[in-house]
Amino acid sequence: MISIHAPRYDVQRMAKNIKPRAQDYAQWYLDVIKAAQLADYSPVRGCMVIRPEGYAIWEAIQRDLDRRFKDTGHVNAYFPLLIPASFLAKEAQHVEGFAMECAVVTHSRLEKDPDKAGALRAASPLEEPLVIRPTSETIIGHMYSEWIQSYRDLPVLINQWANVMRWEMRTRLFLRTSEFLWQEGHTAHETEAEAHEETLRMLDVYAAFAEELLALPVIKGTKTESEKFPGAVTTYCIEAMMQDGKALQAGTSHDLGQNFSKAFDIKFLGRDQKQDFVWTTSWGVSTRLIGAMIMAHSDDEGLVLPPRVAPVVAAIVPIFKTDEERAKVKSFIDKLLKGLVASSEQDQLRRSSDGIETYFFDKTTHQRIIVDWRDARPGDKQYHWEQRGVPFRFEVGPRDVDQDVFVLKRRLDRAKENVQPQTATADWLRAKLDEVQQAMLDKARALRDQMTATASSYDEMQRILAEKGGFVRAYFKPDRAGETKIKEETKATVRCIPFDQSGTRGRDILTGEETDTEVLFALAY
Amino acid sequence: MISIHAPRYDVQRMAKNIKPRAQDYAQWYLDVIKAAQLADYSPVRGCMVIRPEGYAIWEAIQRDLDRRFKDTGHVNAYFPLLIPASFLAKEAQHVEGFAMECAVVTHSRLEKDPDKAGALRAASPLEEPLVIRPTSETIIGHMYSEWIQSYRDLPVLINQWANVMRWEMRTRLFLRTSEFLWQEGHTAHETEAEAHEETLRMLDVYAAFAEELLALPVIKGTKTESEKFPGAVTTYCIEAMMQDGKALQAGTSHDLGQNFSKAFDIKFLGRDQKQDFVWTTSWGVSTRLIGAMIMAHSDDEGLVLPPRVAPVVAAIVPIFKTDEERAKVKSFIDKLLKGLVASSEQDQLRRSSDGIETYFFDKTTHQRIIVDWRDARPGDKQYHWEQRGVPFRFEVGPRDVDQDVFVLKRRLDRAKENVQPQTATADWLRAKLDEVQQAMLDKARALRDQMTATASSYDEMQRILAEKGGFVRAYFKPDRAGETKIKEETKATVRCIPFDQSGTRGRDILTGEETDTEVLFALAY
Repeated sequence: MISIHAPRYDVQRMAKNIKPRAQDYAQWYLDVIKAAQLADYSPVRGCMVIRPEGYAIWEAIQRDLDRRFKDTGHVNAYFPLLIPASFLAKEAQHVEGFAMECAVVTHSRLEKDPDKAGALRAASPLEEPLVIRPTSETIIGHMYSEWIQSYRDLPVLINQWANVMRWEMRTRLFLRTSEFLWQEGHTAHETEAEAHEETLRMLDVYAAFAEELLALPVIKGTKTESEKFPGAVTTYCIEAMMQDGKALQAGTSHDLGQNFSKAFDIKFLGRDQKQDFVWTTSWGVSTRLIGAMIMAHSDDEGLVLPPRVAPVVAAIVPIFKTDEERAKVKSFIDKLLKGLVASSEQDQLRRSSDGIETYFFDKTTHQRIIVDWRDARPGDKQYHWEQRGVPFRFEVGPRDVDQDVFVLKRRLDRAKENVQPQTATADWLRAKLDEVQQAMLDKARALRDQMTATASSYDEMQRILAEKGGFVRAYFKPDRAGETKIKEETKATVRCIPFDQSGTRGRDILTGEETDTEVLFALAY
Repeated sequence: MISIHAPRYDVQRMAKNIKPRAQDYAQWYLDVIKAAQLADYSPVRGCMVIRPEGYAIWEAIQRDLDRRFKDTGHVNAYFPLLIPASFLAKEAQHVEGFAMECAVVTHSRLEKDPDKAGALRAASPLEEPLVIRPTSETIIGHMYSEWIQSYRDLPVLINQWANVMRWEMRTRLFLRTSEFLWQEGHTAHETEAEAHEETLRMLDVYAAFAEELLALPVIKGTKTESEKFPGAVTTYCIEAMMQDGKALQAGTSHDLGQNFSKAFDIKFLGRDQKQDFVWTTSWGVSTRLIGAMIMAHSDDEGLVLPPRVAPVVAAIVPIFKTDEERAKVKSFIDKLLKGLVASSEQDQLRRSSDGIETYFFDKTTHQRIIVDWRDARPGDKQYHWEQRGVPFRFEVGPRDVDQDVFVLKRRLDRAKENVQPQTATADWLRAKLDEVQQAMLDKARALRDQMTATASSYDEMQRILAEKGGFVRAYFKPDRAGETKIKEETKATVRCIPFDQSGTRGRDILTGEETDTEVLFALAY
């Protein structure tokens, strides 16, 4: 018997709580998050609370990525949250453009404020300010310089799952918050070629993960000099397209060369018996991905979840008026559950105070099936689960029972079909979920393709960006001055130089000179 | 083929790197951690780095506990790292004895220090200081007051996996560090009875987890008024016994009554249509458990790991002198691996730079089998894996191959046996690991029993504590003054009032008055 508290929603008030995308895309995004109870603003400026329904998505992301990291030979570790300011000074000297907006710890005690009754103030000042990690290259670099002595100690393939913090002025749930959750891989290698190979391997891992788990098609490419991570030799990225025609950088993988090993003195004795600096990489994705997933798939009715990350895979909604009808429907649903839920889980049911029964559909992923016995109108209950992006709803009324069928409703396209209960096994549902997963990827790919155009002139690019947005593919030789001009005039940036190049030459849209470089421009989150 | 970088150790230097327990238990503990590369001091005072071999233990703990939490109906969420000082002021007014040693964030920017070349200083002061969470009752209480409106919203059963920080002056790796990792459960209920039931349920979850995963027998009991969490109505705990006769509190579960709901105004409309405050609980365990596990099981040779948390379950050490012998041994080991490792993993092997081959033994737990082809003396390699607590070593030399056997060495008791390679299947190894797991629990139980004595007078208790330490069971009616006196005179504290009471009456060791309360005294970490 099990009861999981599904955070509740007043079913009466939810009819018109989501602004349509066409009217106000930014508000729609926030409305979807609120209706699905994925996250909430916290009393701490710029920091969010990730609510259980949202955190379950992050857990699915972690489970999937962590497996991929381990399959490629990585191990996890944990480094301190606080970094001495002097470490960042080292990096700041080395790396121009390092962001200095961060949370600074200056004291180690709170004491009663004698000037303000009931208030506390900072006391016991520290000798040196400490910073909450904005990223961990510096502290990890310091430790690597102690751990690595010889080529035999290489490669070091470490990942960290952690919270990080950057003091952001304008925040948006998941997409940009002061504190966020992420993973950061930090590897050290004997040769430049190996580090390069690792950087590209992890980009491939990210791309496969985004497509297979989040149904998010991405374009792999290289960042331009002006868009790369300042400490990197080369930054690779995966770029996704949102429904409003804006691009979103979904993950980056940095080839750091010897930049950080020189700044943090990470040396090793080589096979040639000479001292050399190691070659390092770093790569990361964050809770931002949840924002990308929401914006890529959801609709005016609310959240649409790829089945592989959905905490609830199916919601069964009984329809009845009398006690007799209720009993009839209940006996039908009980039989249905026997087919859908592993027998070991069937006695694990418990009813929550509000009448929602919860069963595990998959114990490894903790995905659930619920039966919504709440005392509310069936239409409101349907809408409740629709807004939460639950892939399938089963509607069971007395007339359905008479005909020995139930109505299966698919969240993705609101398709309906009558299904006979004996058909509805766990394997059947698994196959249905896989179908939806594939359909969502196909749909997102079609959208992305439709949102991708080619421009042969700057005028044409400006027109496309103004009319429909999306990716604009064009010949352009990346150059800081040219990129700045284009950004000022169109707000678009070079999202990447895609790996997929045609190999032909064309005229640079800005200078008119011949070039063989094609880039993808877009407005971006 | 897969290569996981096993952090290396100079096999030549490891002979006498661990101080025997009898000579210096505190140093022995640190030496074991260092030799097994579980953790390291960081450049940030009081904060540790959890290295991959140590973090893998935490991952095993997380995997096991998280499953137990979900099986009992809990969900995970994430709350902000930073807490406004005013929230703690609220708690400080409410709760006497609240610890104020914490990391205080006062600024949101670093800037170049004009007085000190190359240095950075804090800039952009915040209006209100923020504190890095020492625990999250306050911020979670604030959010619950927004989320909970009606009895239909209850129970709320949320857990958080997070880093927390308390400014500690004297630190010791795992046992007491300024930053540590933990989980904190925070639940809210409709009735006092339900909250009480939850508190005890989670104590049972902790006790079962400690025994089944960490092979750590624990005693369940209630804390005295002076030892309980100040905000709690009642604190329950599990207490474990270390090899040096000191107790260690391995987990706590707090029945908070309405203390926090009143401080943070968490009200709900009841079934009786009246407003009432919810009943809350909180419960947690931390990376401290890794310290407990080390101190309970390890020996003078180094770490001894319960098989269920061991990242490497078996190390195969080839013995050879000539190339011919190497080839012979290799072909034997290749066959051995076919039996031990799932066929889908056999092509996943990759050799690391230093000659350690890694295979997955269990893809769910990511537990590994390694073959140590490093160019070092077999004895040194044996010692290397022994110090890391690997449950089994397989020794394979040319003479063994001739006799179609290998030597199986068991870390726990250094027992040796000859095994025929066809016997050595994955199931066989799994059974062997289970045997060790059980043997470790039995051994720890025997130690705990041997370390438990009964005292019928204060004199007797003092003598036992001075002679051998351990738990001393005695009649004692807990009372702040009496406990303080005993602590000052013996350093011992009441670890708990064990659930297991004899039900008979006896004389209070301090006052001589009759009482029916038996307690467990001990020196403690």
